[in-house]
Amino acid sequence: MKALTPKHKKEEIISFENGILSSEVLEAIFNTLPVEITFVDKNDIVQYFNQPKERIFDRPKTAIGRTVQQCHSEKTIPAVNQLIEDLKTDKKDVVEFWTSSKDRLIHIRYFSVRNKNGEYLGCLELAQDITEIKRIEGEKSLL
Amino acid sequence: MKALTPKHKKEEIISFENGILSSEVLEAIFNTLPVEITFVDKNDIVQYFNQPKERIFDRPKTAIGRTVQQCHSEKTIPAVNQLIEDLKTDKKDVVEFWTSSKDRLIHIRYFSVRNKNGEYLGCLELAQDITEIKRIEGEKSLL
Repeated sequence: MKALTPKHKKEEIISFENGILSSEVLEAIFNTLPVEITFVDKNDIVQYFNQPKERIFDRPKTAIGRTVQQCHSEKTIPAVNQLIEDLKTDKKDVVEFWTSSKDRLIHIRYFSVRNKNGEYLGCLELAQDITEIKRIEGEKSLL
Repeated sequence: MKALTPKHKKEEIISFENGILSSEVLEAIFNTLPVEITFVDKNDIVQYFNQPKERIFDRPKTAIGRTVQQCHSEKTIPAVNQLIEDLKTDKKDVVEFWTSSKDRLIHIRYFSVRNKNGEYLGCLELAQDITEIKRIEGEKSLL
């Protein structure tokens, strides 16, 4: 499928509390982040995932619009439901796991996403390859 | 200053290549990320920074609209200019540093942000407290 380029889609300007970004810049920022993010809304429906240069997990575009339960194996659904319940009810604000895959150590976190009023908007899954980060020692400064 | 709440500002829906997010959700996602991000546009002007729960660096709201050179000490400006030049000219796509601060190890990365056509849109500064991540070992799985 051909990617939509800014020429084909309407450029929008979004105002945040701390600044203003265009939709083109927003999309590029998300895809520049050195982490994989997936956003699942308050009804457990997958609404968005980013596309960093190096992918950790497969994310088919067809996942968008599905419930998070439809994206997991039946065996894991009770644990997934418990995880989401803990985030929704504010019992936890983050749940984390880690796993080795092809000599890489992957850190996976699920955060509750809330607005300024504390209302639950959804869950952010964040997967990060922490293999190189674990090797960082000492100091490396700008000067 | 009182925070703008969704009631006071227009809710917008932004379409991405992989999904759709409202401006309220976008702002909440950025503030949920376990990293500090600052976006500097192609003219070196600070356009946005997020507000994670635990801040690493001070980011006064007055930084928005200033050039990145105005936000650094005179001593570091040649190095900052070289860093940005390397990102703009695609000599590098990321420049990284790390430093200890109050027993925390902070990983700081500068990424070039480019659109689908490879055009430079700006620079993303990303600061992450990697103290806990460095301690991760073994496996911790969902089941």
